[in-house]
Amino acid sequence: MAKDLLYEGKAKKIYSTDDPNQVLIYYKDDATAYNGAKAGNIAGKGEVNNNMSALLYGFLENSGIATHFISKGGEREQLCHKVDIIPVEVIVRNLIAGSMAQRLNIEEGTRPLNLIYELCYKNDDLGDPLINEHHAVALRLSTYEELGHIEVITRRINGLLTRVFDNMGLTLVDYKLEFGRVPGDPNGRILLADEISPDTCRLWDKNTGEKMDKDRFRRDLGGIEEAYRKVLERVQSTL
Amino acid sequence: MAKDLLYEGKAKKIYSTDDPNQVLIYYKDDATAYNGAKAGNIAGKGEVNNNMSALLYGFLENSGIATHFISKGGEREQLCHKVDIIPVEVIVRNLIAGSMAQRLNIEEGTRPLNLIYELCYKNDDLGDPLINEHHAVALRLSTYEELGHIEVITRRINGLLTRVFDNMGLTLVDYKLEFGRVPGDPNGRILLADEISPDTCRLWDKNTGEKMDKDRFRRDLGGIEEAYRKVLERVQSTL
Repeated sequence: MAKDLLYEGKAKKIYSTDDPNQVLIYYKDDATAYNGAKAGNIAGKGEVNNNMSALLYGFLENSGIATHFISKGGEREQLCHKVDIIPVEVIVRNLIAGSMAQRLNIEEGTRPLNLIYELCYKNDDLGDPLINEHHAVALRLSTYEELGHIEVITRRINGLLTRVFDNMGLTLVDYKLEFGRVPGDPNGRILLADEISPDTCRLWDKNTGEKMDKDRFRRDLGGIEEAYRKVLERVQSTL
Repeated sequence: MAKDLLYEGKAKKIYSTDDPNQVLIYYKDDATAYNGAKAGNIAGKGEVNNNMSALLYGFLENSGIATHFISKGGEREQLCHKVDIIPVEVIVRNLIAGSMAQRLNIEEGTRPLNLIYELCYKNDDLGDPLINEHHAVALRLSTYEELGHIEVITRRINGLLTRVFDNMGLTLVDYKLEFGRVPGDPNGRILLADEISPDTCRLWDKNTGEKMDKDRFRRDLGGIEEAYRKVLERVQSTL
């Protein structure tokens, strides 16, 4: 079904298909962290992330969220609507960890009073810097209207995801979302794109606090493959 | 009139007065940049900044902006309403320069399509990092309601200041504002505080593009005292 390689990112390859509006996304085992400074391989990651994303995007679609996901192909592939990715990473934080804990000297695991919603400029050369909506508009990455829509959708997604992960015994600490425009769509439709996986979420076991996500790779905690597989098993048994 | 030293910052000292609701602000010649990494002295800066701020705050008050300013005392002192400073620096950018140009790799002097409005956490130890409103609320620095009010007021201030500096032959490139709460005020009144001076604004000559602000100190361009004096002369002949 895959035809030409359209794009190869750090964790995925995107191929054209016979339908110009659809792409085949192939999930690799390659892992990078700290903006590419740390690179490696997590055996079986592509299968975990493809299967987990497929289940979660199906769940979100059934809950009324418009996503790029169409169907799972093989163990590492899924068929998706083709989108033009908006180069703004949306970060949602239910607990404070990672870069926010470091930049603002807050203890990791602190629960803020409010939901933390952040935008970053998706630009490896600049290190994906934190921006706000005015920077995004000035850089012509997006419009105030699009960004307003994305925030509304993201807050709905967060309500759905925190509950579903909670049902799996996992705390959804924080995560990154990406959105894309449907090319040529007269209504400027925007779809949730990219993936939702242990690569893009911080997931902590609700009871033990164990990290079950890419921080095991970033911080050399070991048991990476096992953690990814366990997360997938919980998603499969819940959705 | 001054009694006890209440606070000494990098550029100002604040003294109590006989009225517990009023303070005397003394403007020093001390100059720092890059979060204190560069420190020095700009002869006569205290007089320029005090006189310039007094004129500009008087102008803003007459234009309906609530500020901390009451009256000029001596050449280096002004009497102000006592406020509790909200530790959020408001940055307004009409042209892109300084940290935004660096962080996002944009040519200095680029005019964005939109007004750039930024918040930074006023915290020397952390290097005054860029934040957004959600971070400010999570850190309990302010509330969404206060921050919304501050943005509305700031946009009005920007309209007033860009016009008045334009009349002086100066481009108001960017600047920092600080706001403070009136202690014990039942209505939670917020006043524009701090100063508006070549220390806190980037001001470029409209015709020559010459930098007439603290960048002359930051970037070792020379002619610092002369630039500050020239700016004050233009303010004095306009307001």
